[in-house]
Amino acid sequence: MGSPVLPKALAFDVFGTVVDWRTSIARESAVFLAEIGMGERDPAAFADAWRAQYIAAMQGMKASGRDFVPLDILHREMLENTLRDWGADVATLDAAMLADWNHAWHRLDPWPDAVEGLTRLKARFPVVTLSNGNVALLLDMARAAGLPWDAILGAEVSGFYKPDRRAYLRTAELLAIAPHDLCLVAAHHGDLAAARATGLQCAYVDRPQEYGGAPAPDAHHEQAWEWRADSIIELADRLGC
Amino acid sequence: MGSPVLPKALAFDVFGTVVDWRTSIARESAVFLAEIGMGERDPAAFADAWRAQYIAAMQGMKASGRDFVPLDILHREMLENTLRDWGADVATLDAAMLADWNHAWHRLDPWPDAVEGLTRLKARFPVVTLSNGNVALLLDMARAAGLPWDAILGAEVSGFYKPDRRAYLRTAELLAIAPHDLCLVAAHHGDLAAARATGLQCAYVDRPQEYGGAPAPDAHHEQAWEWRADSIIELADRLGC
Repeated sequence: MGSPVLPKALAFDVFGTVVDWRTSIARESAVFLAEIGMGERDPAAFADAWRAQYIAAMQGMKASGRDFVPLDILHREMLENTLRDWGADVATLDAAMLADWNHAWHRLDPWPDAVEGLTRLKARFPVVTLSNGNVALLLDMARAAGLPWDAILGAEVSGFYKPDRRAYLRTAELLAIAPHDLCLVAAHHGDLAAARATGLQCAYVDRPQEYGGAPAPDAHHEQAWEWRADSIIELADRLGC
Repeated sequence: MGSPVLPKALAFDVFGTVVDWRTSIARESAVFLAEIGMGERDPAAFADAWRAQYIAAMQGMKASGRDFVPLDILHREMLENTLRDWGADVATLDAAMLADWNHAWHRLDPWPDAVEGLTRLKARFPVVTLSNGNVALLLDMARAAGLPWDAILGAEVSGFYKPDRRAYLRTAELLAIAPHDLCLVAAHHGDLAAARATGLQCAYVDRPQEYGGAPAPDAHHEQAWEWRADSIIELADRLGC
């Protein structure tokens, strides 16, 4: 691979790239499943089932003609669907408990390299989110995990969920830079492919444990990206930070 | 004054409240005025004249039916208007120099208490911008000045300039809190009055030197605000940080 021109800013996918949603959601779901009498079920499988509805929720929202709905609300609908699929009677469950369970997404743990890697990158580049998470979710997560974002951008601020091209282009526009001066950092080839189609640079960070070692659903989108690293710290090395 | 309920988040006006626009713009304008052969003119008066067009620019944009225009573009129009008023032939001026002059707003110095005060407040409350500045401007400023925002919100993200009520309400909505749980911190009674009308709490920070000691244009909007301080550090004291 040659040496591409350095970007002027870095925009990060968050779920899976910066934070380990599966371990965090499984750990919290174990407690809640026990609370509703389902303590014998596999909490990692519950996390997978909850997250598996994500793509369908994105597409369903787009097809429905609903106005933009923050991810917190979609997560809640996905949680209730998952609980029903697992045989729970959602209507009988405590409302405050369900709200707290849903807020587990605000409390996700970062991958071990994330805070140090972002801090090093931030010394040289603006680092912003380009996530489908809503602002309140990402802000809570950043405060809890110590993620040093310069700005929280992405789906809710642009009004469009990735992979809609407007989510990427609006983020570059808000940063007042050309699309090719913005680099999306993501652990997902599908996200990167959509970003590249709008003119962004792309950095792939490998997260083989995102799905607990199972293959990623978007592996067929893999391409030769401008940058590739096994952690955000290694990305900082590659970008000279 | 009694003790109001603590807010859940603090949203800051920026120009005049967090940064000293007048001293910074005067200092930079002195250099640019010299460069265009107007070195004998008063740069503080130039800063005042440039900023004085602000309210008119806001109202003009609203009345014009233009789509939302980022403040960088309005600042540039205001700069050219000011230069014409001062007798310059704008068409003959170097484009890169004008762009750099306009970007002086990205490089404003904080008031001496701002970084320490925000850092203390941030330990307890989310601290976000609720400014008419555009995202790129506020991000550059934060990186240069070390302002530790949790998120950059306000006019460009909401699509409406203050004092439009939607600028305040959308900020609370993005934080997923009720308007009365959000506190606007500002040195301007007019801004606070508009925020209070939408249900926000209000904290006034006195900045008697914002206009070089001249009276503020919106003093007639003064009310008994929930909080009042002479600096952001003093505000942190009052909020128990």
